[in-house]
Amino acid sequence: MTKRPVLDFWFEFASTYSCLTALRIEAAAEAAGVDLRWRPFLLAPIFAAQGWNSSPFNLYPSKGRYMWRDVARRAGRAGLSIVKPEAFPQNSLVAARLALAGRDAGWLPGFTRALFRAEFCEGRNIAEEAVLTAALRAAGADPSLAFPLARSDEVKGRLKAEIELAKSLGIFGAPTFVTEDGELFWGDDRLEEALTWAKDGR
Amino acid sequence: MTKRPVLDFWFEFASTYSCLTALRIEAAAEAAGVDLRWRPFLLAPIFAAQGWNSSPFNLYPSKGRYMWRDVARRAGRAGLSIVKPEAFPQNSLVAARLALAGRDAGWLPGFTRALFRAEFCEGRNIAEEAVLTAALRAAGADPSLAFPLARSDEVKGRLKAEIELAKSLGIFGAPTFVTEDGELFWGDDRLEEALTWAKDGR
Repeated sequence: MTKRPVLDFWFEFASTYSCLTALRIEAAAEAAGVDLRWRPFLLAPIFAAQGWNSSPFNLYPSKGRYMWRDVARRAGRAGLSIVKPEAFPQNSLVAARLALAGRDAGWLPGFTRALFRAEFCEGRNIAEEAVLTAALRAAGADPSLAFPLARSDEVKGRLKAEIELAKSLGIFGAPTFVTEDGELFWGDDRLEEALTWAKDGR
Repeated sequence: MTKRPVLDFWFEFASTYSCLTALRIEAAAEAAGVDLRWRPFLLAPIFAAQGWNSSPFNLYPSKGRYMWRDVARRAGRAGLSIVKPEAFPQNSLVAARLALAGRDAGWLPGFTRALFRAEFCEGRNIAEEAVLTAALRAAGADPSLAFPLARSDEVKGRLKAEIELAKSLGIFGAPTFVTEDGELFWGDDRLEEALTWAKDGR
């Protein structure tokens, strides 16, 4: 039996393009015969290191206006409606810790999809406990176990280590896909190329 | 007879992704039944307005490393080899003025393709007169007429007006495609979407 190729899917809960990918990557990876590793991380420390104190889409208004239009067009073709949340970017720290808390138990992908839908399809605030709780429940996780685990030193350390790994890989935005041979692909629009590379090595 | 749709192709001679588009857009537009308007402009004044004194690919090294790899992969699939020129980004002022000097006479596209090949397939410096002259000749233009025209107040003013128009359209990078109904698409990877929109209005 041949081992299936693995693709790392690095994403940030505050990122619109990460949302587009999260809502379509599973079907695309299955069709390509590629296994996924869902890797939530935070862009804020990476942006801060290059002198940005917010999303580039806020710092550069033309780019921001374009992004919302581009995301709406891409979502529309996938049958989704994108809502711009009141606050952007949102504080994604607890979301990322919760997702990593569900990595071993297997509810990370389901939680991620539910939370992205709440954020960018319903315009909810993902820093709110009620929104996080609903996403946990949708993924079959027990909030009374998940929240304490997300606050544990183990999970906090896990997120820090993931951010350091992302930096060392040269990741500067999200989503980013990394193949087993270290090839980076940045952006929802590179998902198909990344899956092909994961399979064929080119 | 139905009027063919028109797509504006805004490009910057110093831009790698503009090069990728310039070398493939004509066949793609013809296949889609769309007419093109080639619109050279300069990104430097637009970047300067947002506080950048160089290419973002130089200011943000991880992004720059990724860009060269991404461009090489995309070029490879098109059968091209990309060479990183010694200087990047290059001074594209005279190139842009020359291209606009050839707009009415019809040699703008041919000159553009030849100059992009010199820059990113051969690693030549497009600010050098010999390189510009060779590209003019390749496009069937007469350098002894083209250079004086490029230095004329009319052509200088034409370039300034194009840059102002680009700003007012919200253009922040290159290549950018603009449809007749004002829809913007940014990046070589959006060419197909832009052509579809130009044809079908969605």
